[in-house]
Amino acid sequence: MTDKKICVAVIGGGQPTATEVKEAEEIGRALARRGVVLICGGLGGVMEAACRGADSENGVTVGILPGDSRRAANRYVQIPIVTGIGYARNVAVVKSAHAVIAIGGSYGTLTEIGHALQSGIPVVGLNTWGISRNGREDGSIFPAKTPADAVEMALELAGAGE
Amino acid sequence: MTDKKICVAVIGGGQPTATEVKEAEEIGRALARRGVVLICGGLGGVMEAACRGADSENGVTVGILPGDSRRAANRYVQIPIVTGIGYARNVAVVKSAHAVIAIGGSYGTLTEIGHALQSGIPVVGLNTWGISRNGREDGSIFPAKTPADAVEMALELAGAGE
Amino acid sequence: MTDKKICVAVIGGGQPTATEVKEAEEIGRALARRGVVLICGGLGGVMEAACRGADSENGVTVGILPGDSRRAANRYVQIPIVTGIGYARNVAVVKSAHAVIAIGGSYGTLTEIGHALQSGIPVVGLNTWGISRNGREDGSIFPAKTPADAVEMALELAGAGE
Amino acid sequence: MTDKKICVAVIGGGQPTATEVKEAEEIGRALARRGVVLICGGLGGVMEAACRGADSENGVTVGILPGDSRRAANRYVQIPIVTGIGYARNVAVVKSAHAVIAIGGSYGTLTEIGHALQSGIPVVGLNTWGISRNGREDGSIFPAKTPADAVEMALELAGAGE
Repeated sequence: MTDKKICVAVIGGGQPTATEVKEAEEIGRALARRGVVLICGGLGGVMEAACRGADSENGVTVGILPGDSRRAANRYVQIPIVTGIGYARNVAVVKSAHAVIAIGGSYGTLTEIGHALQSGIPVVGLNTWGISRNGREDGSIFPAKTPADAVEMALELAGAGE
Repeated sequence: MTDKKICVAVIGGGQPTATEVKEAEEIGRALARRGVVLICGGLGGVMEAACRGADSENGVTVGILPGDSRRAANRYVQIPIVTGIGYARNVAVVKSAHAVIAIGGSYGTLTEIGHALQSGIPVVGLNTWGISRNGREDGSIFPAKTPADAVEMALELAGAGE
Repeated sequence: MTDKKICVAVIGGGQPTATEVKEAEEIGRALARRGVVLICGGLGGVMEAACRGADSENGVTVGILPGDSRRAANRYVQIPIVTGIGYARNVAVVKSAHAVIAIGGSYGTLTEIGHALQSGIPVVGLNTWGISRNGREDGSIFPAKTPADAVEMALELAGAGE
Repeated sequence: MTDKKICVAVIGGGQPTATEVKEAEEIGRALARRGVVLICGGLGGVMEAACRGADSENGVTVGILPGDSRRAANRYVQIPIVTGIGYARNVAVVKSAHAVIAIGGSYGTLTEIGHALQSGIPVVGLNTWGISRNGREDGSIFPAKTPADAVEMALELAGAGE
């Protein structure tokens, strides 16, 4: 029988800032060193940076792709999941994780945050979306100050969510 | 050949306030009077209220259901679409519309707002989610003051999006 | 409250023979005359022919599209459902129907037949796929001899499946 | 940079015969010994037997689950992908593979065969479905005589499909 590993999704935009790229890579490295499986959307930007970090530390990287071809996966994805269901794959990205780390990001990232919260999967945010419900701030996204911080928080929340 | 009708999605929570129920019903009625097809997630709460309003004015109501059974549709859904894909159906709800009206709502509504914005479909909000990107407000959701206002804005935006 | 209408899906290939086109159109007409809502995949070939038939008799036509744009719908689709989930939408095409009529068709049609049988939705076939399980014929597809025959069988099975 | 591994999906029913269980396990073992990543639907029966075989040889096992919980995965799935999209996940099971091996199976397996053939992914069959199009046999499923045979054929076809 296999020990189930902790899985953490790293989500964020395809066109990140240089800072976000660094942060994603650092998070990928830290997750890999902790033996965590990295789940992501498999494409470029934050996804690629996180995979590159994890891969550099011999971590396992899973890319859940929106399209019909594994060729769209960034080169650091070891296990490409080819869904063919477009952005509906955002649901699978977060549902496959024990916790989610959001770095910056655009509307796709916003949907992933929403799908995670809807499914009760904890979300740690690094300079990402803020959400307010009818004018009142919603505090469900745990704010992290640094990449190291984000990883610690995600692992703690992932364990609690078990 | 068939004239394609304008389709507007009304999204919102399954457990709305009494005010939200009234607003959804009024919006449903107004859309139907304008000959608009009402798209929604097919379940209760805001979805049911909007369908009830549209149905009372002989409008067409489409419910895009998450589960495996058409029996889950509220009684005012005339055309139930049974997807079996769970919350991934949220993508189809907004993509099937020329414009979206969000009334209050919880995380599911937030995902629909995100999917709409990601796909370039205009979103009108009535006391719904506010979003900010890394601390800076994102003004993509058009705020409406009243149900009548929301319908006018949605129709204008729907036409522009054609 | 709304009377729920009987929904029948007509499935088949995008590149049908001339005979299949005629059959699909005749089936569309017959379904519309019986007040049945026509469900289909929304594209060309058998789907378009069935919609054209239904539309000519003022029937309601629903096209559940695989892609991201309603513009892909054939011109006789009155209510385009834009799923963006690719061929995974085949599941929704059959699940949204009380019964399915398959006309000819290629592998996409085969998947729809399989998804219908998996969900317990009756399938009537007109010169379509035959299936055998480990060498033994599987008799789950009801063979029709003519379009009129197919419609009668589908309506009877749809009623039974209620 | 990571070497992309060959991925083979093993598909089949949740309630296999004793022979099918043995075959699936043998196939899982053989794939793992060849360094192939095993893709499957993540549940019981043929899926579990194949994962058990692969796991016993330290192979990598991926289970693409239909539901909302990783707990539904069989105990030999190392990387559970939680899709929440129901049987629409069948599309992702086959699209994520370079080749598919079908063992027996029911209608779900039939849909996976259809989706694979529709996407041009080669299918090797072991006592599984046979398909004929309008009375004429469709020879697209490569028939294997033994589990070892199935693995050889799948690997050859997977390479060709690269």
